[in-house]
Amino acid sequence: MAASTDQAYLAMEHSVRSRVPPILTDLYQFTMAYAYWRAGRHNEHAVFELFFRENPFDGGFSLFAGLTDCLLFLRNFHFSEEDIKYLQTVLPPDTDPTFFSFLTTLDCSAVSISSVPEGSTVFARVPLLEVSGPLAVVQLLETSLLCLVNYASLVCSNAARFRLAAGPKLKLIELGLRRAQGPDGGLSASRYSHIGGFDMTSNVMAGLLFGVPVSGTMAHSYVTSFSSLEEVWPRVMIPSDGGERVDVVTLTIGWLKRICQLLGVKSEHVHEGELTAFLSFGIAYPQNFLPVIDTYSVKSSGLPCFCAVALTLCELGYQPVGVRLDSGDLCKLSVEVRSVFLQCCNHFEVKQFLSLIIIGSNGVSEQSLGDLKKKKSEIDMMGVGTHLVTCTHQPSLGCVYKLVEVSGQPKIKFTEDPEKTTLPGSKNVYRLLDTEGHPFLDLLCLSEEPPPVAGVSMQCHLLGHGNTLYCVTPGQVIKLRQNVFSKGQLTLPLSSVAESKARAQICIHSLHPRYKCLQQPDTYTVAMSEKLYLLLCDVKAKNTSANNFLLQ
Amino acid sequence: MAASTDQAYLAMEHSVRSRVPPILTDLYQFTMAYAYWRAGRHNEHAVFELFFRENPFDGGFSLFAGLTDCLLFLRNFHFSEEDIKYLQTVLPPDTDPTFFSFLTTLDCSAVSISSVPEGSTVFARVPLLEVSGPLAVVQLLETSLLCLVNYASLVCSNAARFRLAAGPKLKLIELGLRRAQGPDGGLSASRYSHIGGFDMTSNVMAGLLFGVPVSGTMAHSYVTSFSSLEEVWPRVMIPSDGGERVDVVTLTIGWLKRICQLLGVKSEHVHEGELTAFLSFGIAYPQNFLPVIDTYSVKSSGLPCFCAVALTLCELGYQPVGVRLDSGDLCKLSVEVRSVFLQCCNHFEVKQFLSLIIIGSNGVSEQSLGDLKKKKSEIDMMGVGTHLVTCTHQPSLGCVYKLVEVSGQPKIKFTEDPEKTTLPGSKNVYRLLDTEGHPFLDLLCLSEEPPPVAGVSMQCHLLGHGNTLYCVTPGQVIKLRQNVFSKGQLTLPLSSVAESKARAQICIHSLHPRYKCLQQPDTYTVAMSEKLYLLLCDVKAKNTSANNFLLQ
Repeated sequence: MAASTDQAYLAMEHSVRSRVPPILTDLYQFTMAYAYWRAGRHNEHAVFELFFRENPFDGGFSLFAGLTDCLLFLRNFHFSEEDIKYLQTVLPPDTDPTFFSFLTTLDCSAVSISSVPEGSTVFARVPLLEVSGPLAVVQLLETSLLCLVNYASLVCSNAARFRLAAGPKLKLIELGLRRAQGPDGGLSASRYSHIGGFDMTSNVMAGLLFGVPVSGTMAHSYVTSFSSLEEVWPRVMIPSDGGERVDVVTLTIGWLKRICQLLGVKSEHVHEGELTAFLSFGIAYPQNFLPVIDTYSVKSSGLPCFCAVALTLCELGYQPVGVRLDSGDLCKLSVEVRSVFLQCCNHFEVKQFLSLIIIGSNGVSEQSLGDLKKKKSEIDMMGVGTHLVTCTHQPSLGCVYKLVEVSGQPKIKFTEDPEKTTLPGSKNVYRLLDTEGHPFLDLLCLSEEPPPVAGVSMQCHLLGHGNTLYCVTPGQVIKLRQNVFSKGQLTLPLSSVAESKARAQICIHSLHPRYKCLQQPDTYTVAMSEKLYLLLCDVKAKNTSANNFLLQ
Repeated sequence: MAASTDQAYLAMEHSVRSRVPPILTDLYQFTMAYAYWRAGRHNEHAVFELFFRENPFDGGFSLFAGLTDCLLFLRNFHFSEEDIKYLQTVLPPDTDPTFFSFLTTLDCSAVSISSVPEGSTVFARVPLLEVSGPLAVVQLLETSLLCLVNYASLVCSNAARFRLAAGPKLKLIELGLRRAQGPDGGLSASRYSHIGGFDMTSNVMAGLLFGVPVSGTMAHSYVTSFSSLEEVWPRVMIPSDGGERVDVVTLTIGWLKRICQLLGVKSEHVHEGELTAFLSFGIAYPQNFLPVIDTYSVKSSGLPCFCAVALTLCELGYQPVGVRLDSGDLCKLSVEVRSVFLQCCNHFEVKQFLSLIIIGSNGVSEQSLGDLKKKKSEIDMMGVGTHLVTCTHQPSLGCVYKLVEVSGQPKIKFTEDPEKTTLPGSKNVYRLLDTEGHPFLDLLCLSEEPPPVAGVSMQCHLLGHGNTLYCVTPGQVIKLRQNVFSKGQLTLPLSSVAESKARAQICIHSLHPRYKCLQQPDTYTVAMSEKLYLLLCDVKAKNTSANNFLLQ
């Protein structure tokens, strides 16, 4: 896609997505903001981290997505008069009215964001976003940012798994709009499954807004709406290279008779309505003929009707495209359909039948895509809806947003559940690659620490493994996060959908197979620097040591 | 809620929801529309039905929702120049350009909708919406209508199950915004789970748009942001009935010492930061004090800190509200917390502690709400997020949109899978109630048939039971669907959220327990009239009888 086109999409998207208003958040963000404000702490400099604790789908990796939406949200963050008026009715009546004047002044001009680029492979417990700025403001951002990252990353990661299950050749089209959580759920699904590895979508608006290629031909209702060949109109076509008009109804009936004979199909089982529907469609789309052939019976009616119309089109010099199967044993049917295409090709000498494609759809899951590789199948393209967009196996990603620093003081949540303890302080994240270019460890360091150096061995502490020291020598070091937002402005151009998709492909390609296998992958190593480890010990100790304040 | 407020909400909602543009649909709707137009069939009168084939969650019933969104979508249905320009790039280059001019003229002025009211209990295979109008237009509506009904009805039905599992007394608050499919997924979840039986939401925008009561107090980050009592500001409070300023830091420390003694808690385990956070919050919200008490340790720190601040507030004449528990065994903890409240009440003679409430949250599911009734629990309110909004057990509802009539001709999809065969013709749907007012059968009749009559026995055919005749005598008969949209206009006022919620409650209340039990409910009976049955046989016969068109 050309850069200028990308910009056009981004401009359009901006006008659509900037609609996420700052009151799309949980009430407690305002309740807390007021309490901070009341205590005079609202402008203290705070740092929050956004991360998830486990890769979704029992997988070895995830893809990070949703950043563009977050940045557009931040850039447009301000409260309308209507918002404030509503908040006044919701907060307690004794709330100091000056607080609402304070809210009207808020924006993200003092907020900074450091983020993993959209489309990157990411792992559990690595902070994906660091959000810093005035305590009250960055607290108010929590729910909206989580909402924008959670589903985007989840469906993007799910799409990547479908792509890995399908292998690189099979075309994948996303069909989930009708099964998603409303209009925006559907749009997000189309956009982020494209980034994660899908080729196309059926969602026209996603095509318009994000430049995702769109595709689609006909539903069963088109077929059932026809009854009789009398409905065919116009009844004549001009061959592709010009010339006399040809009566295509008569021509198609002729082909159907020959096809029925060739395939041993009883002509009385052929649905006149189905033939009519296909012929009408072929007349409308002589170069894009691709009907759904299972409305009544693939073998007795749909397939012979397709062949008859396709042979008519071929005779007139057009190239039919293929068929869609939407029920039954898709693999088995596809093999039978392909064999009929070959039979036609040989018997009627129509080479065009060699390039016909077969599309499958109907409840396709990661599992069924995986099976496709094991079974004999002639499917060229798969349409996936429900299981992709609802992420059936795990319909939510548990991203959290945790405070790690206030006014220069490192903070942790140190609960009785050690899994939920957070890591203190503002950090940098480095991805260490082995000498073959495969990532093998993500290292969390304090912001002030120098980066690890390629070829130089270093010690670190594995997350969740107590005080065990681990010695590594990176082949290459990549700084995982970039500063993307500062002083209310984007500091890097927004990634287009095409750029994020390309990044995802590169990242997944460079990932070692042991992390990207879909079943029982190895756990990718995340570690912290010695300094961060010492800080954690120090903050923990302060949290558990005797408190003397009661003696004051 | 007052009618005028309702109208205000609806007006606002209108401006937000009308944003669903007609290109938020699958491309094949346009591909088919062109083929219909090309064949001159686009203005044929067509009738589609929207229904689902199985109740979600293995349940005995569902709630229907999404109608308001559908009606607003229909009322605003038209293609913008930008839409058309984009469609021109997507349809094949040989598409007749006149088609795009035709698209610009389209609206829903010739479309009629008959629908079940929003919030009604509904059952599998009953047509919930009947959409009739020009073939090309009503075909174009398919995906958008499915998208607007599917998730709305799914999450509304899920909420109803959570309410049934919880019983009528427990307050339920929806907290799912961060786990939903983006902003609109979150908004839909808040709106429709309120209709389904939830009392409140954390989602502020849902409050503003739909009038759902909002609630929320503090997150753990509020607690971890505080370290030392020096951060408390202001340090004095005025008692509720006026008078001298009181040093609340000293007062709270005094109460904490007494509490620690009473509960046998070691004062060195109490987190100064947690006490500070609670005290600051209490100062900001003297009449709305409800902190989350599990940031560090409920028993060693959170609960004693709560009691100390709450006792301070009580001493100053304020009424603290309660606590939130967000981890651990919620039932067990709630019992322990309640016992401490009683201990305080007795020991310190603070009656205010008798009315404290306990809120639970953290991964709450339908199952865990059910367990609550079996275990000893002192929880007054539950917050539910992920499992509610993602509908974990079944994250999509499979509504379909099937053609039943074109130009007065009944249509069916008659596949090799008998479950997927549709019922022909435009219909009326009647709900038959027994003499006690419980619905026991939904009857599908042809439009031209007279309605069943209360007290008069009649014969019908059960769906999926072949030609078995079934004799019933309704106690009452309700016409299930209403004409809600005609000639481009609403023919009934839109249901407000409050009205739909009230309807849902009434409908569920009148449902016999055998259909609303959550495990292994009875299957509600859906039947067709004798006339409809005969029509189905007739259309089926035509579909399977010998076709003579090849002899033409």
